[in-house]
Amino acid sequence: MDKFMKVANEEAKKNKEQNFKNGGPFGAVIVKNNKIIAKAHNTVLQDNDPTAHAEINAIRKAGNILKSYDLSDCILYTSCYPCPMCLSAIIWSNIKTVYYGNTKEDAANIGFKDDYIYSIINNANSYLNLKNIDRNETIKLFEEFSKSPTLY
Amino acid sequence: MDKFMKVANEEAKKNKEQNFKNGGPFGAVIVKNNKIIAKAHNTVLQDNDPTAHAEINAIRKAGNILKSYDLSDCILYTSCYPCPMCLSAIIWSNIKTVYYGNTKEDAANIGFKDDYIYSIINNANSYLNLKNIDRNETIKLFEEFSKSPTLY
Repeated sequence: MDKFMKVANEEAKKNKEQNFKNGGPFGAVIVKNNKIIAKAHNTVLQDNDPTAHAEINAIRKAGNILKSYDLSDCILYTSCYPCPMCLSAIIWSNIKTVYYGNTKEDAANIGFKDDYIYSIINNANSYLNLKNIDRNETIKLFEEFSKSPTLY
Repeated sequence: MDKFMKVANEEAKKNKEQNFKNGGPFGAVIVKNNKIIAKAHNTVLQDNDPTAHAEINAIRKAGNILKSYDLSDCILYTSCYPCPMCLSAIIWSNIKTVYYGNTKEDAANIGFKDDYIYSIINNANSYLNLKNIDRNETIKLFEEFSKSPTLY
């Protein structure tokens, strides 16, 4: 077994020790220059944080440790294919290589809706009430931003 | 202007005060029973956290305040259409109603890649190196999870 995937899988197993009361069976590791920068598991239930998936937790830790939101030189290992939230976070972080173990179909088979979210994300009005209001006011800040020098 | 969208827009403006060095021009508010539970703006640069979008920050705050990962009874107001990371976080949090100001095309016009991520999220191998390894090992925990009683 790949040595880093083994660590990601061990992270996932940490929630088993608590009978999955702290979160689901998911773990992730971020590696840079062949060294582990951060490892994490799902803590949604423990932290009352629906965003606290393994990959998000690992990205947040790595950013904090490397003092950068840009993780370009990092590789992510995750015990399961990232959900759309985590996949987008990976893209925002500039990570380019991801190794995953279980598939999103495997996640669906144990009751997680990753696969479903992928299926509706570009048609979200079929699932959410998404309503556009007050753009005439909110657009003003975007217009100011586009004129500002920024590091973003 | 809607009173809650006005607060979301005011949050977005907080980054303008710092010339957008702390994060992009985005703000969000979470409301329950017509009261504001949490408000937040983008702090990606300030926090070295690529996940610290306004909506994610607001969801994390609301979960912490309400002591629940389940925000079913909440409504989210955001100054811009959520990116795929934030939209998925909204779905995971069980929020069902979202009011947004600017569109994802507006975000693209000022240099943010929300719209691009939507376009490739279901074909992520076109952008990322996504490699499946060691599923024969990682699947074992899923099999154990499926046999466990859980609150998840």
